[in-house]
Amino acid sequence: MRNNVGREISDEILRERGYRPFKSVDIGKTEIRRVAPTVHVGKRESKICSSLADIVKRTVRDGMTISFHHHFRNGDFIFNQVMRILIDQGVRDLTLAPSSLIGVMNDIAIEAIRCGTVTGITSSGMRGSLGDFVSHGGMESPVIFRSHGNRARAIEEGDIKIDVAFLGVPNADRLGNANGMFGDAVFGSLGYALVDAAYADTVVLLTDTIVEYPNTPASIKQTQVDYVVKVDRVGDPDKIGSGATRFTKNPKDLKIAQAVNEVIVASSLFRDGFSFQTGSGGAALAVTRYLRRSMIDHGVKASFALGGITKPMIDLLDEGLVHKIMDVQDFDSCAADSMRTHACQQEIDASWYADPHNKAAMVDQLDIAILSALEIDTNFNVNVMSGSDGIIRGAIGGHQDAATAKLTIISAPLVRGRIATVVPDVTTVITPGESIDVLVTEYGIAVNPRRADLARELKGAIGMDVKPIEELQRLAEHIVGTPRPLEFTDRAVALVEYRDGSLIDTIRQIRD
Amino acid sequence: MRNNVGREISDEILRERGYRPFKSVDIGKTEIRRVAPTVHVGKRESKICSSLADIVKRTVRDGMTISFHHHFRNGDFIFNQVMRILIDQGVRDLTLAPSSLIGVMNDIAIEAIRCGTVTGITSSGMRGSLGDFVSHGGMESPVIFRSHGNRARAIEEGDIKIDVAFLGVPNADRLGNANGMFGDAVFGSLGYALVDAAYADTVVLLTDTIVEYPNTPASIKQTQVDYVVKVDRVGDPDKIGSGATRFTKNPKDLKIAQAVNEVIVASSLFRDGFSFQTGSGGAALAVTRYLRRSMIDHGVKASFALGGITKPMIDLLDEGLVHKIMDVQDFDSCAADSMRTHACQQEIDASWYADPHNKAAMVDQLDIAILSALEIDTNFNVNVMSGSDGIIRGAIGGHQDAATAKLTIISAPLVRGRIATVVPDVTTVITPGESIDVLVTEYGIAVNPRRADLARELKGAIGMDVKPIEELQRLAEHIVGTPRPLEFTDRAVALVEYRDGSLIDTIRQIRD
Repeated sequence: MRNNVGREISDEILRERGYRPFKSVDIGKTEIRRVAPTVHVGKRESKICSSLADIVKRTVRDGMTISFHHHFRNGDFIFNQVMRILIDQGVRDLTLAPSSLIGVMNDIAIEAIRCGTVTGITSSGMRGSLGDFVSHGGMESPVIFRSHGNRARAIEEGDIKIDVAFLGVPNADRLGNANGMFGDAVFGSLGYALVDAAYADTVVLLTDTIVEYPNTPASIKQTQVDYVVKVDRVGDPDKIGSGATRFTKNPKDLKIAQAVNEVIVASSLFRDGFSFQTGSGGAALAVTRYLRRSMIDHGVKASFALGGITKPMIDLLDEGLVHKIMDVQDFDSCAADSMRTHACQQEIDASWYADPHNKAAMVDQLDIAILSALEIDTNFNVNVMSGSDGIIRGAIGGHQDAATAKLTIISAPLVRGRIATVVPDVTTVITPGESIDVLVTEYGIAVNPRRADLARELKGAIGMDVKPIEELQRLAEHIVGTPRPLEFTDRAVALVEYRDGSLIDTIRQIRD
Repeated sequence: MRNNVGREISDEILRERGYRPFKSVDIGKTEIRRVAPTVHVGKRESKICSSLADIVKRTVRDGMTISFHHHFRNGDFIFNQVMRILIDQGVRDLTLAPSSLIGVMNDIAIEAIRCGTVTGITSSGMRGSLGDFVSHGGMESPVIFRSHGNRARAIEEGDIKIDVAFLGVPNADRLGNANGMFGDAVFGSLGYALVDAAYADTVVLLTDTIVEYPNTPASIKQTQVDYVVKVDRVGDPDKIGSGATRFTKNPKDLKIAQAVNEVIVASSLFRDGFSFQTGSGGAALAVTRYLRRSMIDHGVKASFALGGITKPMIDLLDEGLVHKIMDVQDFDSCAADSMRTHACQQEIDASWYADPHNKAAMVDQLDIAILSALEIDTNFNVNVMSGSDGIIRGAIGGHQDAATAKLTIISAPLVRGRIATVVPDVTTVITPGESIDVLVTEYGIAVNPRRADLARELKGAIGMDVKPIEELQRLAEHIVGTPRPLEFTDRAVALVEYRDGSLIDTIRQIRD
């Protein structure tokens, strides 16, 4: 069958896994029965253990689902330590359910799959050698990709049942009260990990810094933690900041960023009390810089900024241009450090950020989201997961989630080298065109035909270069030529869920 | 049968209600399956409703369990408004599950019972006309009394299933982010209400102050809230402070407080990094004052103070004599106000405070607890619920919970007027003698024979008047005479649970 973004979905997958095919970005009204963890009760003076190997042995059994967070990014020292022990202890058939998989985790993840320690993965994304390995059929069972909001939903509803969560923290006391704000390897908000701490049957904290009891503020609480393992180092602070947070000097990026800002300012949503999410990436950071200028010029202040937080957003908070920052993760050390001192920088968990089956997620309230794309097609469907070569090299992150904003802007170059970004049909549909409003490229702007109101607003603005998306697609094709169609086998190597848990696309094994 | 504190428990009650009889204060190792609420999903720009009657009509059905918190104490304007509507709408067979029932709620609670709107109650306690009414058989079904920690446990395990929680807050935004710190009727920590917000199927906030979105810090979160009802006033700030928080000038109270402090200082637990809970009540406040002096004199600082928080504890925090305050409720406006500015005053929910079926509750870590008693018997069993006339006039509060401290001191006068506090056998066992270590009266100190170690420590201290508790009991009887035994019918009007959910005692209908 074909789902509502025109993707062929095998009946077998729908039947065997009980999936609904993707229908609509509209969640509608529904009633959800949440799940809850099993709690092992036993009064203890201290939960501190010195041997990680002992704790792994005591808690992990064959066939379990284990989780990690990716707040340390490439500075993470946790994943490799735990996986090494699991492989060496010969544990088998684990499902990995991290909030995302980062490059530094790739080698050992592949090793764990090869030796049968890991046979299932659900993640926000994967890149590099691991994406390559999976795309070439390295795993028996397809990987399941879920957005940050969908992961929270899946955990809260029982689609993901975490048996043991291994959560690295820069500090903890003897009973497990912990936060991401103090210590040698601070990363700020513990947003993604908070859901694991609340729902995993067993929660193991790993830290290099044991502090006096009781540790406050306690983002993770002693009521949730089973063990605290003292390790030498949890992470490398120099590598925690995402590489994607440097300011761009690329003239093309700056041109796009400027145009994105013009779209924002021209829209009727740009008014006092508006809200926005920019994300990381050079162009996004540049947008925040242009937006700052426009906010000052127009005397407009934002009620909140959301999402992955970066220094430019903290600057807006400091200047009083943004009233609140709702912080599910921090992309750089400035943003992470600022949580310590800014009362208006509220830590939110992934559920509050974006679980669509909530009584209200932050993304539901978002006016403007600026998002990126590897590919966007003439139906405005966006791909942030597979490359033009069909290989997995991305992550959903909060893309599907934030795209529910009233004005979702895709900021992307028309072409990257010899590869078109605007294409007739994306390789993988991650975010449905239904939730994308505008595409901004260095060659012009396209408005989703669903948004005639917005097209009018933008066409009324001076100097706005609005074109049909088909024209941008033809232009891209003209520049880089028509690529040879990709060849895939019939075998699904990954399933892509929409944020409500329905199946939006599958990624098939690349034919070599 | 008789349970392990020697109380006659009818087999019928054990059987019909599936109770275990109380065995021991030791919770031991056990595995608990938590429950979770049903969530009604539906994206909305605002949850604000102006008509409380409409919301009550929309959410409450016959036979449901509804809850309230008692943080406003006698300044509460919520309970009466909601109950009035429920009675007028002719709703029937409700179970009330508030965190406690306060005097200001009594009249309408009795009216609701009389007209069949309320047929079940679980509470921490009750006093005045309502206690009198229940003790005389005013309800068909027995009231269930639970400690604050046990209420959290019961909610988290499904023994109490809250259908609709009506939670008054001094501020909220349009989606339900709320805290107890800002507005006209601030009460500080939302400790008891946080459990309701997390576990009730439907959460209705009532507030007189709608603030800008997003409201931070968000003790209650938009992810948990279904409706926000704007009311004229949520409470009277002048009546929120408990009457029991005034400093005593009564020489007897001061003498007892001084002796309590001497016991603390003489114990080996009085060392740098110790922890304590004092509670409210004139004598408890006086203890804190004496303790301050001793801490300065001995150069001892506390790691944390716990519980219901009062001004003297905030003073200790300000002076650096206490490092952290773990705050489940604030007994006076100074303590409530100070949460706004003190990062070291951590709001904790009732589960973190005292749920015995947790991975670690604060009370499990408590060194010293100073608690009160209406009666204490020669087995050190304590009654804080029924008067010497057999009438319900008290509340468990956190008594059973905090009594798990390493050193639990009962501070009580030997006699009150013509009524003995130290008795051969308490009217109702609330807290088992097994968890009580010392009794301090104005006529001397008694140490539980289980604590020979402590008796040695105290007898070694200069001027400590340690006596067998039997001697204190005889002295009390000598002063006030032997009271006529109370006469009860066979009918249970209330069941008293121990904090683990086992049945520790029943209260029978008084024979007129």
